[in-house]
Amino acid sequence: MSTPEKFDFGMIGLGVMGRNLLLNMGDHGVKGAGFDKDASKGALLEQESTNGNLKGFSDIKQFVASLNSPRAIMMLVPAGKIVDDVIEELLPLIDKGDLIIDGGNTYYTDTNRRFDYLNKKGIHFFGMGVSGGEEGARRGPSMMPGGDKEAYNVVKPIFESIAAKVDGEPCVTYCGTGSAGNFVKMVHNGIEYGVMQLLAETYEILKKGLGMDNSAIEQVFTQWNEGRLKSFLVEVTRDVFRYKEPGSDHLLLDDIKDEARAKGTGKWTSQVAMDLQAPIPTVDSSVAMRDLSKYKELRVQAEGIYGGVEGQLSVNKEEFLAALENAFYFNMIISYAQGIHMLTNASTEFQYGLNLAEIAKIWRGGCIIRSLFLQNIYEAFTANPGLEHLLLDGGVANEVKGAVSGARTVVSAVTAAGIAAPCYAASLSYFDAFRSGRMPSNLIQAQRDYFGAHTYELIGKEGKFHTQWVAKN
Amino acid sequence: MSTPEKFDFGMIGLGVMGRNLLLNMGDHGVKGAGFDKDASKGALLEQESTNGNLKGFSDIKQFVASLNSPRAIMMLVPAGKIVDDVIEELLPLIDKGDLIIDGGNTYYTDTNRRFDYLNKKGIHFFGMGVSGGEEGARRGPSMMPGGDKEAYNVVKPIFESIAAKVDGEPCVTYCGTGSAGNFVKMVHNGIEYGVMQLLAETYEILKKGLGMDNSAIEQVFTQWNEGRLKSFLVEVTRDVFRYKEPGSDHLLLDDIKDEARAKGTGKWTSQVAMDLQAPIPTVDSSVAMRDLSKYKELRVQAEGIYGGVEGQLSVNKEEFLAALENAFYFNMIISYAQGIHMLTNASTEFQYGLNLAEIAKIWRGGCIIRSLFLQNIYEAFTANPGLEHLLLDGGVANEVKGAVSGARTVVSAVTAAGIAAPCYAASLSYFDAFRSGRMPSNLIQAQRDYFGAHTYELIGKEGKFHTQWVAKN
Repeated sequence: MSTPEKFDFGMIGLGVMGRNLLLNMGDHGVKGAGFDKDASKGALLEQESTNGNLKGFSDIKQFVASLNSPRAIMMLVPAGKIVDDVIEELLPLIDKGDLIIDGGNTYYTDTNRRFDYLNKKGIHFFGMGVSGGEEGARRGPSMMPGGDKEAYNVVKPIFESIAAKVDGEPCVTYCGTGSAGNFVKMVHNGIEYGVMQLLAETYEILKKGLGMDNSAIEQVFTQWNEGRLKSFLVEVTRDVFRYKEPGSDHLLLDDIKDEARAKGTGKWTSQVAMDLQAPIPTVDSSVAMRDLSKYKELRVQAEGIYGGVEGQLSVNKEEFLAALENAFYFNMIISYAQGIHMLTNASTEFQYGLNLAEIAKIWRGGCIIRSLFLQNIYEAFTANPGLEHLLLDGGVANEVKGAVSGARTVVSAVTAAGIAAPCYAASLSYFDAFRSGRMPSNLIQAQRDYFGAHTYELIGKEGKFHTQWVAKN
Repeated sequence: MSTPEKFDFGMIGLGVMGRNLLLNMGDHGVKGAGFDKDASKGALLEQESTNGNLKGFSDIKQFVASLNSPRAIMMLVPAGKIVDDVIEELLPLIDKGDLIIDGGNTYYTDTNRRFDYLNKKGIHFFGMGVSGGEEGARRGPSMMPGGDKEAYNVVKPIFESIAAKVDGEPCVTYCGTGSAGNFVKMVHNGIEYGVMQLLAETYEILKKGLGMDNSAIEQVFTQWNEGRLKSFLVEVTRDVFRYKEPGSDHLLLDDIKDEARAKGTGKWTSQVAMDLQAPIPTVDSSVAMRDLSKYKELRVQAEGIYGGVEGQLSVNKEEFLAALENAFYFNMIISYAQGIHMLTNASTEFQYGLNLAEIAKIWRGGCIIRSLFLQNIYEAFTANPGLEHLLLDGGVANEVKGAVSGARTVVSAVTAAGIAAPCYAASLSYFDAFRSGRMPSNLIQAQRDYFGAHTYELIGKEGKFHTQWVAKN
């Protein structure tokens, strides 16, 4: 067996994320131990490690015993019951003062529960969102820790060393109290769902609306990624439009089923936003479309009844592509604005004490939603930490004003042509409702009072009122 | 105190709904006892009762003792903890074989929990959705019982007697096992949220888009309610556009705040739909807009920055109004289609055994979403009980085909003009996505595999696949 070497950091779960994070740590001089029940994962870790800093274990007792005290143990295992199981397995083996970090996409209330549970046992615990996927984990992720700040400070140097850097600054920051880390990561993922669906709709518009082939579509995404839309998800999309299997004459994309899967973080974001009454309709639409994609057979039947759509936009292509770039920029801003507004509400509701400038800052690099535009958001919240909504920032407003007419052109045209672009439409209608000093919601109050005696409120008059709107029969 | 008279039915909670339901029962010869801690409610009950069939109690022991065995006791109290409290208060006073009915908007899982709890104690229990508001409860509601069928059959004659009637048939039916009754009512309310927001957006389009005054808007809703759009919610809206306070020179509507409240059943519908992966984006949008309406101050600020919109549609008014009628018809069909699709999914997931024809049948009268069009839905599911989606029915498809171009005209025009119509847009984009035999969701699968190694599936090939989309750096 192993020499009695001691390690500074332990990782439980050596799947894609855990292994790559640990390899990243090893590159930064951290002596790290990895545990996975599947011994081949530990072997893979050691094989991929080039500096002798890392060791794999498949025996949890040996793994725990190999760690210096106080132990710092991070879990990167699927969210849910498995996290509880791992904690129970660890408890008899660790000591008071040790630290457990949950790096998974854990539902925020679970983090609160586990914090209370472990706190009573003298074990430090915090949840930390990790974004960046496989490559991010390996080369520099964005990380969103929250909760036990003192405990975070112990491991802060390790995370700052492995994080992505933007302008020399690490993409990791203490987000706030309690489950703040997991919550911020959840909203990050919600924004990610929205932007991914917006890219899928862009593909639909280019393909069905303008009749462009894959090569022409690739050119559009390539250009977009060279300008103000520069972002990881546009880059990913560009690359997908470049990839053919060896020997194939067409894109792999064309062979992939149009049934999108989901692991649930986007859904959670929408559900929690509804609880907070912080509307994020762009994310909601993206969740609905992932779900609708599942009903392949029904959709094929519906196309048989109602017909499909191909190349029906009668527009000037150059002008329309310029409008589309504006529309996507607009949509991207709206997606961020909705997500950040949700964070503002959550910070109040859960007393997270979120620093939105810091969050925008660490999202600029490493994570899936990183983009040039996050610099604008960072600047907006740096200049005005109390900014209540991103769309109310002067700098952002200038960008929106310049882009919104493109969004109108696109949504109006594709709607008329029958091309589905629900997230484009939801982003624009959210904006139009948001800039309505007077919404038509007074009618809803009247209706509710009419049939349910739910009462209504009056402009400039305190109290709740009820009216008998029609004579009783 | 009271003579030792015995009653056939007991009602707990003599608020608007409970009192009116009991008055309705009294009219149909049911000897009913009502309980409310607030003695004035019981007094009001007796005062409003004209036939001596009803008696009010403010002492729960006397109330329970006044009921014939087996006792049938219905609760119409706010959903949540109060229901549990009432049950605990009743338990020492009632006997095995007695029946408790929860008539509130109870979350469906609470009903399952209470059923199990009471079942162990030998108490029959079922949840029943009641719709129709104050007037419906008094003159004929639509009722959606589910769960303990045997228990329901005991009180069935009472409910059939007080229910709304359409073509002589009562608007009440056993919906299905477990919490089916509450679930069906929740989805009913979700559809209600959607249609109410669609009516609010119609108001916005008529007012801001066409510059019509309230009197002209009232004419539109009056006409609509005389044709195929005939429905309770259009009728309510028409009446709201007729109502002035005594001595006032303008509509009460104009004085009402544009901040819509909600009791949460619409939110639940959207949240549960996401759990079921049964997309209902029209409802989601209506929830988002109720929530957005809360942020009055931010909206006023945003209008200051981005400007508001008034009367900017340059359209032929007659033609546009015809398109709008088509659009609303289309939206209404889509709203029902989404809700019913959710019910289909829930019936499978929770093994409710829902009979959708029966549900459409009892929604035709008494309830808030009653409309002429529910007859079409009833006929569609009667002809084909296994219909997987309302939009796949031939008769419904003909209606949709006739109306969809109006929806396109309206959404396209109002989008270009900057008028917010999120539910109009969500309904249409749902339809366009639904009739896409091939959605662009293959791109989402490729993206997920690219950055998260989540794998994808291939057309015509079993298995899950992962690709290294770009060379590792």
